[in-house]
Amino acid sequence: MLKVAVVGATGYTGIELIKLLWAHPRVRIAALTTRQKEPLAVRTLVPSLPKDADLEIRRYPLKELKRKADLFFVCLPHTQAADTVAELIKAGKTVIDLSADFRLRDTRAYEIWYTVKHRHPDLLKRAVYGLSEVYRSEIKKADLVANPGCYPTGVILALAPLLRRRLIDPRGITIDAKSGVSGAGKKLSPTTQYCEVEGNFFAYKVGRHQHTPEIEQVLADVAGRKIEVTFVPHLLPLERGILSTIYLRRKKDVDSATVKKAYETTYRNEPFVRVKEENTFPELHDVRYTNYCDIGFTCDRTSDRLIVVTALDNLLKGASGQAVQNMNIRCGFPEEEGLRR
Amino acid sequence: MLKVAVVGATGYTGIELIKLLWAHPRVRIAALTTRQKEPLAVRTLVPSLPKDADLEIRRYPLKELKRKADLFFVCLPHTQAADTVAELIKAGKTVIDLSADFRLRDTRAYEIWYTVKHRHPDLLKRAVYGLSEVYRSEIKKADLVANPGCYPTGVILALAPLLRRRLIDPRGITIDAKSGVSGAGKKLSPTTQYCEVEGNFFAYKVGRHQHTPEIEQVLADVAGRKIEVTFVPHLLPLERGILSTIYLRRKKDVDSATVKKAYETTYRNEPFVRVKEENTFPELHDVRYTNYCDIGFTCDRTSDRLIVVTALDNLLKGASGQAVQNMNIRCGFPEEEGLRR
Amino acid sequence: MLKVAVVGATGYTGIELIKLLWAHPRVRIAALTTRQKEPLAVRTLVPSLPKDADLEIRRYPLKELKRKADLFFVCLPHTQAADTVAELIKAGKTVIDLSADFRLRDTRAYEIWYTVKHRHPDLLKRAVYGLSEVYRSEIKKADLVANPGCYPTGVILALAPLLRRRLIDPRGITIDAKSGVSGAGKKLSPTTQYCEVEGNFFAYKVGRHQHTPEIEQVLADVAGRKIEVTFVPHLLPLERGILSTIYLRRKKDVDSATVKKAYETTYRNEPFVRVKEENTFPELHDVRYTNYCDIGFTCDRTSDRLIVVTALDNLLKGASGQAVQNMNIRCGFPEEEGLRR
Amino acid sequence: MLKVAVVGATGYTGIELIKLLWAHPRVRIAALTTRQKEPLAVRTLVPSLPKDADLEIRRYPLKELKRKADLFFVCLPHTQAADTVAELIKAGKTVIDLSADFRLRDTRAYEIWYTVKHRHPDLLKRAVYGLSEVYRSEIKKADLVANPGCYPTGVILALAPLLRRRLIDPRGITIDAKSGVSGAGKKLSPTTQYCEVEGNFFAYKVGRHQHTPEIEQVLADVAGRKIEVTFVPHLLPLERGILSTIYLRRKKDVDSATVKKAYETTYRNEPFVRVKEENTFPELHDVRYTNYCDIGFTCDRTSDRLIVVTALDNLLKGASGQAVQNMNIRCGFPEEEGLRR
Repeated sequence: MLKVAVVGATGYTGIELIKLLWAHPRVRIAALTTRQKEPLAVRTLVPSLPKDADLEIRRYPLKELKRKADLFFVCLPHTQAADTVAELIKAGKTVIDLSADFRLRDTRAYEIWYTVKHRHPDLLKRAVYGLSEVYRSEIKKADLVANPGCYPTGVILALAPLLRRRLIDPRGITIDAKSGVSGAGKKLSPTTQYCEVEGNFFAYKVGRHQHTPEIEQVLADVAGRKIEVTFVPHLLPLERGILSTIYLRRKKDVDSATVKKAYETTYRNEPFVRVKEENTFPELHDVRYTNYCDIGFTCDRTSDRLIVVTALDNLLKGASGQAVQNMNIRCGFPEEEGLRR
Repeated sequence: MLKVAVVGATGYTGIELIKLLWAHPRVRIAALTTRQKEPLAVRTLVPSLPKDADLEIRRYPLKELKRKADLFFVCLPHTQAADTVAELIKAGKTVIDLSADFRLRDTRAYEIWYTVKHRHPDLLKRAVYGLSEVYRSEIKKADLVANPGCYPTGVILALAPLLRRRLIDPRGITIDAKSGVSGAGKKLSPTTQYCEVEGNFFAYKVGRHQHTPEIEQVLADVAGRKIEVTFVPHLLPLERGILSTIYLRRKKDVDSATVKKAYETTYRNEPFVRVKEENTFPELHDVRYTNYCDIGFTCDRTSDRLIVVTALDNLLKGASGQAVQNMNIRCGFPEEEGLRR
Repeated sequence: MLKVAVVGATGYTGIELIKLLWAHPRVRIAALTTRQKEPLAVRTLVPSLPKDADLEIRRYPLKELKRKADLFFVCLPHTQAADTVAELIKAGKTVIDLSADFRLRDTRAYEIWYTVKHRHPDLLKRAVYGLSEVYRSEIKKADLVANPGCYPTGVILALAPLLRRRLIDPRGITIDAKSGVSGAGKKLSPTTQYCEVEGNFFAYKVGRHQHTPEIEQVLADVAGRKIEVTFVPHLLPLERGILSTIYLRRKKDVDSATVKKAYETTYRNEPFVRVKEENTFPELHDVRYTNYCDIGFTCDRTSDRLIVVTALDNLLKGASGQAVQNMNIRCGFPEEEGLRR
Repeated sequence: MLKVAVVGATGYTGIELIKLLWAHPRVRIAALTTRQKEPLAVRTLVPSLPKDADLEIRRYPLKELKRKADLFFVCLPHTQAADTVAELIKAGKTVIDLSADFRLRDTRAYEIWYTVKHRHPDLLKRAVYGLSEVYRSEIKKADLVANPGCYPTGVILALAPLLRRRLIDPRGITIDAKSGVSGAGKKLSPTTQYCEVEGNFFAYKVGRHQHTPEIEQVLADVAGRKIEVTFVPHLLPLERGILSTIYLRRKKDVDSATVKKAYETTYRNEPFVRVKEENTFPELHDVRYTNYCDIGFTCDRTSDRLIVVTALDNLLKGASGQAVQNMNIRCGFPEEEGLRR
């Protein structure tokens, strides 16, 4: 049994990890940490756990924490995770970091989008971007997995097969994304109060969301050239799920069959990516509470337009589910272990 | 007092009209019709009306109906409204038709998108498309106002000032629209059952929604050339409101100030269109239960992209509110009468 | 035109008052106050107001404030309203206080339930409990109207006619109440975050909600004896509305006809209380966005049980609507003025 | 591996059973039936299943169906299940019937509440009411388990320990229950359309819900005397969960400690009933997507009142979860198998 710990376990991604790890047959949860003074019973935080679940979530001195586990999921806020990650790596541990701190290879980009200086730039070259389907072979050997953001996961899975095969114009990629409220985290905020969200819908950070450079970095890797995207996120009045509608221009001679084949070839053997028949599209209901990313597409009636729709559960494939998938890959477990339901 | 009737009063647009007309100081509701056999007390249908409201909604023989009122709001389903409208026009009445039957000037387009032959093509040249801000002078003299669809209203108000001034590339206009469930009407359907909608979100009729030709017809009028748009509607888990995010390419030398000025000049004196400061965007909460259409925009960071967001209440500015606004225009009432709250 | 002010205008009851007063034909809003440093445009706070609405919400020195208006709506938090109310009363103004500070005549009860000492006990005898239908004649002459809590309004309107006529056992009254989230106010709180409320439902302050003594005080007035009730509030995943299900024991020989007659006699001429046919029950949809309180009832099949269901909009008849109704009564305006829609 | 079938698999309880049985390590799903003509891929109905799930849901001639499995879950509508159940029992199969057809021992009660004559009264004496915690020893030997209704499950689990120990007055039991919309099933209905439910809340079948005799039958078994309850269900604007608030009168000398002890003693070793500390109450979020029934209670401040709150997921402990629990009991599997997550 692999001993694992969740650092910063009381947020939404932490809670989701606890549920997944509890039911995972190959791991034992060895520590759950919080910065709050008062310890907390795990069943208070996660009431769906069995009656006999009795772990305590509490503060740990880093020294003690390091001894507790072999693999660490770090769920601390962006800009606050880097120091802890660095300590754990120094201690020879395997880390899956759910924050954004090691996702961008370019420290200037990090400093622009997160508005702080990066404190551990030396670690960036050791970090592997944890989009399982794209970087699987690197993840197998990584000590530091930078688990992707929720928006980039679906968007990149939809775009990578098309860009790699040069089926679309790499310019003018337009991503209209819509996310449930849990994506904003548990922090108190006027914009996530019930009465502000219920019956409401709006765009936010229009053209300046911090997931933009993350998307562009991976698409550049895949396309072998610089990519700039237009990315507009919106807030949906629901708890979980992200659906992105992506507008593209097909290259000449690219038709539905070409697109279909690109997706099929890429994802046929992927356990967690499902490609729909042409002209049928994913719904959030299809993917919530699962680790799937579903993809649907259509060629627009008159123009050269290709429209792709992609959906996933932001807390699972968009965060904690993919983190467990990455652990499975890294540790040589079957990739679906603990994620089939 | 103008005598008005609502034909087909039991659907969502009918209910909304009853509320508006009841409080309107210049009209008297003379008849409310339904095809259901059993008459219905108006307060059963619209419980928010005052205790002393006691009209009956019932079947009327057309002959009787014609004598009851001078202006008729027709809220019958698409393809079923045309006959009634024709009869009323023949009887010399003023008609505001909330169906799609007289919106498209081109009968072939109508037959393609609504899959039936148009039964009264002769009336099409008398019909005025009732987008108040664009066709006000024609509406003033019209006997037959074809009240716009909910999606086109917001989209056209956002695009017309830009196309008219040639500020944007007329090719490649991309409209990502999201609507509340009331837009689907009151008809029983598996897709609008509570458990299917709650917590869900999806695209539908991707690239083939029947409002597409309506948008393209008016934009062509405004631009003086053929326009093709990519239009993808989505269903939001909320009752009312439409928000559309529109992706455009600015022409050379067009910047934020140019765009701002175009909107300001066009809408400064319009009571029901509100332009927001650059980089601020409308929310559905701002417009629900009002007759406003709000517009926000931004120029994307690196590219030539212009992003416009537009929001309105699909049952008010997107249907019944605009119908009353058109009545006000047609009858010489103050345009905001009955719509200021 | 009566000059009115709203003190503490940025909360949910303040916003609702602004909407009502703006459309009220007999008043002019002379001041809107906030304790926030930065002034706020009224249309930023209340986007549904007409484009030409341009008042500023800002801090006022009390001295300046007093000169601005004749009637003041005070929407400050409980325990913080009393001082301001006292100052305004001393200056000879009419005050409608939406806080709980002057509702309980018994200062000990106030201190128990609100856990602070009452700072202006001398004013309590001048305060009239503003349940319009029960204390109308007193309200007509009052300088200080203590506007009722949202829960008590519906509950008392349902029980008063039965207790006054001694139709029910005054012991064992059980009130199971369910409220929308806006009842909790705008203050940030973990329990009113979207992800905690959506898909959730729970009882809170079981048997110890501060509205209990308010209900008991008025029922005692009406019954002429001490009354104790069991009161359990619950939080509904919706924005607005309160529905209370009340379980009673009928006295011998009391049947449906007796109950029906009691309600009809009491409320026939009341503009804002609507009694439903036996065995039909109000829904929140019937009353939201209105000033109505709807009442339905049934006699249980085998026992002596009487079940009464009552519904209202917590922000209107349960707060700001009733406040305007009380202003209308106090100032001799028609009681429905500004409240018919 | 036990071969199981779900008869009538396309409703909400059928879908939930498929999810549970798919992940259950001791069973194999051998058949899924529907009355619809067109076969349906199981992943179309239940998109959360793994990519390799490829069963077909289709019509089966009864003769073929009988041969397919050893244990049958029958999810047909009330009054339509009895014939199928009878056939399966005659063929020597084990049946867990999720309909109401074999819950009431008294055929007159059945005919009154379900308004049809019972077609298989002879089978009633073989049927065991499947409330796992109350009738476990009988379920172990039963061929026909009548799986309880969703409302009765929580209510009876809350009341049985109190009635059995005679801690409460058996008269005047008042149950105020609130259910999510999935309890109404998948059938199209105006009252479960999204726009009718969202933002709404109402009582229905007040004092005449068909679960009343079911509750009374079991409570009579437990109390050893006739019991009549007042039962009022309400519809919540959410998908899943039932919370019932129950109002009782304690017998003399019964205090919190007595009540606490009664619950603890009864449920200490029950895997799926969780008793909360006094004065803390269950929320729907604690139980949704689980097989738990949570119970909280308080003794009211002044009176002899005892208030009990009970919550469960209507599709799991209130239907399909309990059905699997009953299968586990009947087949000698560990009781939590397939239900711990």
